[in-house]
Amino acid sequence: MQLTFRQARAADIPRLVELLADDALGATREDLSQPLNRSSTLAFHSIDQDPNNELVVVEAEAELAGMMQLTFIPYLTHTGSWRCLIEGVRVAQAFRDQGLGTELIRWAIARAREQDCAIVQLTSDKQRPDALRFYEALGFKASHEGFKLRL
Amino acid sequence: MQLTFRQARAADIPRLVELLADDALGATREDLSQPLNRSSTLAFHSIDQDPNNELVVVEAEAELAGMMQLTFIPYLTHTGSWRCLIEGVRVAQAFRDQGLGTELIRWAIARAREQDCAIVQLTSDKQRPDALRFYEALGFKASHEGFKLRL
Repeated sequence: MQLTFRQARAADIPRLVELLADDALGATREDLSQPLNRSSTLAFHSIDQDPNNELVVVEAEAELAGMMQLTFIPYLTHTGSWRCLIEGVRVAQAFRDQGLGTELIRWAIARAREQDCAIVQLTSDKQRPDALRFYEALGFKASHEGFKLRL
Repeated sequence: MQLTFRQARAADIPRLVELLADDALGATREDLSQPLNRSSTLAFHSIDQDPNNELVVVEAEAELAGMMQLTFIPYLTHTGSWRCLIEGVRVAQAFRDQGLGTELIRWAIARAREQDCAIVQLTSDKQRPDALRFYEALGFKASHEGFKLRL
């Protein structure tokens, strides 16, 4: 399968929102109504304008097959270093169980190295046991609890 | 105890690095040698110049008593919304067990609301059982695994 990674464009937003909603947890919290919720467009432009945020898509067979967001963050901790935070990883139904998720995360790790990051990190919902095994198989350690507080 | 919250300044860097190192886990990974590791200064300036990153300090009794870093991140997920990520929370030895940590996190939550964030999140090392109880008491849910990969 030939994969093409690129930055997301504004024209991708409707498809990206579909991808986010096409998921057991995402289905409960995304808004697929048309015209698109204005906050999705605003969020896209905030990401797009920030050099430390990258919304990455992967195309396969001329379709948008997967997505993820990378955030590069400078920290004083660990002797002053950058980290790459991965969030919102999704693979389209038609492309699941073909190793595309692995390719996305490998691409993210390579991009993090390029940006001179010392750590790649992400949180994964404990309700997704397959995802937990998936990240462990890629070398991630579940050394931390991932705390969330809804405002 | 009268507390003053403010953004960190370059002159604070040596004290901030001391605070980060004055901790069971931090002691193994921070560099207290003088002159300060150049990467600490570079990291400080990267944080300082980024409108989406805030290195916050709290002063008590004319001393730098605590610190934390806030990162505001726009996401397409959750119908397009911002999150506040908290990292590098430290309270100086002399000020521990006096509720200062709670004040830091409450300040962070108020700041996140001000920035219109939908979620406040952080990861906490599973080797810090006290910290885990602390965040739960503040209303955070350990709904996620916090995965890290060192590069």
